[in-house]
Amino acid sequence: MGYVVYSCELLEKFCLNAFHKIGFTEEESKIITDVLMLSDMYGIESHGMQRLVRYHKGIEKGMIKLDAKPEIVMETPVTAVIDAHDGMGQLVGHQAMEMAIEKAKKSGIGIVTVRNSNHYGIAGYYAKMACDQGLIGFSATNSEAIMVPTFGRLAMIGSNPIAMSAPADPYPFFFDASTTVVTRGKLEMYNKMEKPLPEGWALDKDGHDSTDAPDVLKNIVAKNGGGIMPLGGSKEQSGSHKGYGWGMVCEFFCSILSQGTTSNFVNQNGKSGTCHAFMAINPAYFGNPDDIKKHFSQYLKELRESPKAEGQPRIYTHGEKEVAAVADRKKNGIPVNENTVREMIEFAKFVGIDPKEYFGDFAAKESKMFSGNY
Amino acid sequence: MGYVVYSCELLEKFCLNAFHKIGFTEEESKIITDVLMLSDMYGIESHGMQRLVRYHKGIEKGMIKLDAKPEIVMETPVTAVIDAHDGMGQLVGHQAMEMAIEKAKKSGIGIVTVRNSNHYGIAGYYAKMACDQGLIGFSATNSEAIMVPTFGRLAMIGSNPIAMSAPADPYPFFFDASTTVVTRGKLEMYNKMEKPLPEGWALDKDGHDSTDAPDVLKNIVAKNGGGIMPLGGSKEQSGSHKGYGWGMVCEFFCSILSQGTTSNFVNQNGKSGTCHAFMAINPAYFGNPDDIKKHFSQYLKELRESPKAEGQPRIYTHGEKEVAAVADRKKNGIPVNENTVREMIEFAKFVGIDPKEYFGDFAAKESKMFSGNY
Repeated sequence: MGYVVYSCELLEKFCLNAFHKIGFTEEESKIITDVLMLSDMYGIESHGMQRLVRYHKGIEKGMIKLDAKPEIVMETPVTAVIDAHDGMGQLVGHQAMEMAIEKAKKSGIGIVTVRNSNHYGIAGYYAKMACDQGLIGFSATNSEAIMVPTFGRLAMIGSNPIAMSAPADPYPFFFDASTTVVTRGKLEMYNKMEKPLPEGWALDKDGHDSTDAPDVLKNIVAKNGGGIMPLGGSKEQSGSHKGYGWGMVCEFFCSILSQGTTSNFVNQNGKSGTCHAFMAINPAYFGNPDDIKKHFSQYLKELRESPKAEGQPRIYTHGEKEVAAVADRKKNGIPVNENTVREMIEFAKFVGIDPKEYFGDFAAKESKMFSGNY
Repeated sequence: MGYVVYSCELLEKFCLNAFHKIGFTEEESKIITDVLMLSDMYGIESHGMQRLVRYHKGIEKGMIKLDAKPEIVMETPVTAVIDAHDGMGQLVGHQAMEMAIEKAKKSGIGIVTVRNSNHYGIAGYYAKMACDQGLIGFSATNSEAIMVPTFGRLAMIGSNPIAMSAPADPYPFFFDASTTVVTRGKLEMYNKMEKPLPEGWALDKDGHDSTDAPDVLKNIVAKNGGGIMPLGGSKEQSGSHKGYGWGMVCEFFCSILSQGTTSNFVNQNGKSGTCHAFMAINPAYFGNPDDIKKHFSQYLKELRESPKAEGQPRIYTHGEKEVAAVADRKKNGIPVNENTVREMIEFAKFVGIDPKEYFGDFAAKESKMFSGNY
């Protein structure tokens, strides 16, 4: 399975036009595109163009409602609860984080929780929104059940990522991680690459270790059992209950506080029900923000400069790899899996724009190889 | 290495009297005792009586100042920063969580961060304080560096536990976990038991895997290198960077926001400098607290009742084992490692109470076996 490299500009233009053509306003299309592009720019392949097929199918099936108007069902100076009414996750996500940021600026802290939404891209995008304004940002989302609780065999919890970002020099701190060992996106990538999964990632339908990506994914879709292990694996000795606990913390802020759909019922009966949470904290409510930033930057520097394990050239702090990835993608473009390009071509045709305008050579080659496919 | 079983009442009486005798007020002694007893009652052996030796040594060396008066250096309706001035961690911890709870009741959310403190026991105690009043509670603490960052070989981050507790039926949710695979306390227990460490827990001074508890502990104390792995182990493939990231989240709320001592400088030059963080959230600011509790309880029930992995009799939700442990300890007493009993006898002698009054048979047997020792 090969990769095709496209410029950031081309992929951005494609997303903007595709989402605009399907019915989103220019501003909405820009927000959705921004979230997807940041993922690919950061090297988080699983949540960039690779996710378009899910939005395509979600819109096609009516799970994602193009004209949904999010409703603020409760609001206080420091909190809010929003019902997204099945709208696009990125749009309500952006709105909710803007609200959390405003609350943090005025009152010190803002927590906004969202129910009845859809997949919202990378959690880190929203945490970064707060950080870009000098605040500490958090975001989390639940998702279709994929994590098997410790000692279980049925996925009951989402990949449930939690992201945090905070100002620091020379790079902001940026931590965005599923509470499973890996995300479903990573399993899908291994599946597309036709490679066996590393040990310690997934469980078969009976709750035993499995390295068989297609089988694990098939069982997850069919709710046969099996799924991905929590961070810490499947045994308490390696901390399975801790990853499971972090998944629960995420679930609490997303689906419990918002009184929305828990992961074990997400994406069922034609409805997503995905829930999110957003928090912004104003460092000025704890001291001088410049002093706090300087103190954090110093510690991050000490970590990077601390002695390396034998054979390891470098210690990273969270957010460093992302900065390097952006520089690389801007210079060298974004490598996109061929299967993903095929999905993008299908998406183009679905929304009614010409795939050849964006993926000309590939589309031409494909139609030659599999005549009639496009 | 054997265990001796003592009643909860005896251990509680011992702690109360020992801390009172050393100079704490009755109320202060009760808070400290409560924190330690909850740990042993919950079956978290590493943070109960096993920790007394550290308080003993801390007081003896002057790292813990008996007469410290915590100072509120900044306060807003939703936040506060406290300088503990090297006081006992449990006392400033209790005070800080009380403040966070008051803020959450009045303003929806309260975050209090503390610098210049000492070891404060289990993080979960403070999270539970908020939960006992119908709120969502969080607490975290940094500690002497023990976690080696991914690709590093020197411990730079504490075990950095984060705890969360929230109301639910029939048991509250209670999650209290270090962001390392295991705590230093667990290593100390293996050391006392003279057992090799399980694989995947610790690193030697060069950053390679090690199962040698005394060697790892010796290297940590001497700052030679090595330490405990983050949750997720030492490799990115198993999620090492995620555990490392959670350790950083803890560090941020504790030592960065409070502008205190980062873990890599904790317990140096005769000063602890430990930092803590506390958060309380009022569910009434998100909806009807009873509805939220009911929704959470239902999900926890679904988790417990979901299909088990082949060969596993039971799935736990966080807090369930603790409830069972309390029932067991109340009925059957608390098993205390013999080495820990020896440390308690030393502590009794240090503060000036008669160890025979509490540990009569053991103390008598010991003085017979090692005459002159007691």
